Amino acid sequence: MTLPSSSPEPALLAAVDLGSNSFHMVVAQEWGTELRLLDRLREGVRLAEGLRPDGSLDPAVASRALECLARFAQRLQGVPPERVRVIGTNTLRLATRAEDFVGAIEKTLGFPVEIVAGREEARLIYLGVAHSLAVDARERRLVVDIGGGSTEVIAGTGFQPWITESLNYGCVASTRSFFADGRISEAAMAALQNRVRLAIEPSLGDYFRHGWDQAVGSSGTIKAVLRILSENGQGTRITPGGLEWLRAQVLQLGQISALHKLRGLKSDRAAVFPGGLAILLALFASLRIQEMRFSEGALREGAIYDLLGRIHHEDSRELSVANLQQRFHSQVQRNAEVVEWAGQLFAAARHAWALHDGHLAWLRWAAATHDIGLDIAHSGFHKHGEYIWRNGDIAGFSRREQNLIACLVRCQRKKLLSLSQLQALGVAAEDVEGLQRLAVLLRLAIVLQRGATGLDHKPSLTIRGRTLELRFPPNWRTTAPLLAADLEQEQILVNPDFQVLC
Amino acid sequence: MTLPSSSPEPALLAAVDLGSNSFHMVVAQEWGTELRLLDRLREGVRLAEGLRPDGSLDPAVASRALECLARFAQRLQGVPPERVRVIGTNTLRLATRAEDFVGAIEKTLGFPVEIVAGREEARLIYLGVAHSLAVDARERRLVVDIGGGSTEVIAGTGFQPWITESLNYGCVASTRSFFADGRISEAAMAALQNRVRLAIEPSLGDYFRHGWDQAVGSSGTIKAVLRILSENGQGTRITPGGLEWLRAQVLQLGQISALHKLRGLKSDRAAVFPGGLAILLALFASLRIQEMRFSEGALREGAIYDLLGRIHHEDSRELSVANLQQRFHSQVQRNAEVVEWAGQLFAAARHAWALHDGHLAWLRWAAATHDIGLDIAHSGFHKHGEYIWRNGDIAGFSRREQNLIACLVRCQRKKLLSLSQLQALGVAAEDVEGLQRLAVLLRLAIVLQRGATGLDHKPSLTIRGRTLELRFPPNWRTTAPLLAADLEQEQILVNPDFQVLC
Repeated sequence: MTLPSSSPEPALLAAVDLGSNSFHMVVAQEWGTELRLLDRLREGVRLAEGLRPDGSLDPAVASRALECLARFAQRLQGVPPERVRVIGTNTLRLATRAEDFVGAIEKTLGFPVEIVAGREEARLIYLGVAHSLAVDARERRLVVDIGGGSTEVIAGTGFQPWITESLNYGCVASTRSFFADGRISEAAMAALQNRVRLAIEPSLGDYFRHGWDQAVGSSGTIKAVLRILSENGQGTRITPGGLEWLRAQVLQLGQISALHKLRGLKSDRAAVFPGGLAILLALFASLRIQEMRFSEGALREGAIYDLLGRIHHEDSRELSVANLQQRFHSQVQRNAEVVEWAGQLFAAARHAWALHDGHLAWLRWAAATHDIGLDIAHSGFHKHGEYIWRNGDIAGFSRREQNLIACLVRCQRKKLLSLSQLQALGVAAEDVEGLQRLAVLLRLAIVLQRGATGLDHKPSLTIRGRTLELRFPPNWRTTAPLLAADLEQEQILVNPDFQVLC
Repeated sequence: MTLPSSSPEPALLAAVDLGSNSFHMVVAQEWGTELRLLDRLREGVRLAEGLRPDGSLDPAVASRALECLARFAQRLQGVPPERVRVIGTNTLRLATRAEDFVGAIEKTLGFPVEIVAGREEARLIYLGVAHSLAVDARERRLVVDIGGGSTEVIAGTGFQPWITESLNYGCVASTRSFFADGRISEAAMAALQNRVRLAIEPSLGDYFRHGWDQAVGSSGTIKAVLRILSENGQGTRITPGGLEWLRAQVLQLGQISALHKLRGLKSDRAAVFPGGLAILLALFASLRIQEMRFSEGALREGAIYDLLGRIHHEDSRELSVANLQQRFHSQVQRNAEVVEWAGQLFAAARHAWALHDGHLAWLRWAAATHDIGLDIAHSGFHKHGEYIWRNGDIAGFSRREQNLIACLVRCQRKKLLSLSQLQALGVAAEDVEGLQRLAVLLRLAIVLQRGATGLDHKPSLTIRGRTLELRFPPNWRTTAPLLAADLEQEQILVNPDFQVLC
């Protein structure tokens, strides 16, 4: 017998981090403008171990991941969906043939998964760490997080990350490839260190120019290093000297199977320790770090603070859209008018088409940036805008959101894409119909901004099924013949999926 | 019996315009810093008529085109290849299944064909018209050219075009689709006019902001309109009043077959006249043109003046590359160092790999812009740079050149693409080997810029077949261990196509 679920607690927020080494969950309560953390859960799923070269996932690893999430799911019951974020990182980025697995996660948890790009991961980590430190808007911080599949290095000031890098080296994957036979040789350590140093090399200048008042590490590797150093009398911060001592110890033990002799190293960390240590050594050398402290704050805390910002209208995505406009030289004023028209059409269509606030946000962001592709070329600019949205570093957005907005920008002109064409572009089955409807609204908003500004009255929109009826003031065809021709062309381009009457 | 060809005349230059309505050729002689036009040839091939919906060309039209070019080819004998440009425009842009035809043109003429984008066509037209007008660096000009497949509208000052638009409406294609049955109705005229007005609409603000002191038309349509007006006592310039008179005449005749009754209209122009007239009417209305004169200068003259600039080191492509760097926020100083390294490696490889000056230019442009993809995203930035080069509006470059540089930028990192992968990206068989070699030089230039700056001596390069040997000062592996690791990785990434020894 199941008990009825408790009534929703509106003040709760939660974030799940589907990391490559561990899965984490944090549940928190709003506390004024801050958060009170209620629960932290961690399970060492080691997802990266299950990643096969063809992009599929080992079923045994997948099922151990789902068992963990079933436990997490119990704690998430009753938290409203708009207050939960589930974030996938490196291993899920690389697992290109794991749609079924992502679907199973969503079913188990009951919430959608956002797979985020490396830079977005870095941004969220910085946010999580910054919130764990003293509030000081001027303090410059260097944050390092060695994950299972990637390592994030971020320089920022106060709560604002400025340089966000994600290196494709993590403790699980690196230990697997550089210490495959369990032997820890000096040559393998040096080879991995050099690789990591090469990867960070092109950005070193940026980090040094920004500078930092303190270096902070998060992640299990760095926590483990600090515990070993302190339990062996090597200080309470990580220093180059302490790391050198640790490297000598590890090389002397010479085998992963012998690492348990190291005082302070937990047994489940040993299997991924040499890779993590080599990465940390490389970053200390390249960035010339003198001292590093540890913070419990990490991706999941960052995700939850970012969510809090969205709820309280400090959405980092709005800032990113403004940045996009600037970077790609948008006509900001004209786009604002398109956003305005889009909002009015959306209001008229919302009920009939069962659209929600998430849809409105996508539509507004697409309208605000529909012309960014012009910066590449005039010919085919809707496709160039699509390319930028799909591939760009755009802070705050998940890959799914970026793809949805990319498809909207693509659909702003020329023949409207069909549902199956949209699915071929990676739009999920449940999003595809809403997306096509938003595309029609975006197209009309662009046409109306272009041609209806001079009319006496604004046209009104009525929706019946797939028919859109625009009503204009009398004689509009005489006063705005170009608008009439424009809408005529639209009628052809959105056919047969939609009928536009006017 | 063939006479031996006359000795080459080094001062000759020639340009061939493979237009959608007519083919043109101009042969000129250098005359100080100016040109003296020796020959102008025109044949009404009407290539656009042969374009089929699937992107292939009607063989009958293709063979009439080749017959014309065989005649042109006789005049081109003895002109050195670097002093000839053969330019393809709208119909060849759309003829996506006509590689054989382009190959046959190149064989007939003995020179490669450059297919240029609409904006590049517009730029060259402006250049051609500007050189036909009085030298006045401050005069603002509006130039309209109604071609067979597209119409170019350009606003510029002196010799500098600023707003370059290419509309997908030309006199051949438009007459075919709007007056298919030979009847010239008021409704069809109005429908075509509205389409053209919609196409120019988004750019109107730019044209009005730039403004113009005089409007100039080139192309056969505009020449024909002016001749009809003047032979019928309607003035010596084109005005809205004259055009209105002409529209009424044409509608009254009502049939393409009756247009020969119009005094001043040549018989071969009648078949494409209604479309051209409607386009001109639309542009007069939208741009509110009060008066337009005619210029004989056009694409072919523009191409020949552009060529003269390249010969005398005022290459418009250099300016475009600098613009790209600025638009996409390149690290200009670092890139200049990469260009420097690339030039040194090129000098060492030139002889052994039979590279020529054209190769050096591609390599330098790729090196100067290798980082532009970073403006879109860090992850996969070589692919984003490739995308910008392949799709961008980049003045002075043909599509072939843009694609070659796109491929070079793509090959700057990660696994080197094989010859067949490069061919799949659209690189011609004769370019593919040279391109792959340039890619290896570019990669090494980037690696050396990153790591060899601190060395006592610069390394030297020796090439033997597909083996590159870099010689460094002794002990370099100790003083530059990262460079050594970087080159080690390169050795793996360019294998098996090349061996890098050091």
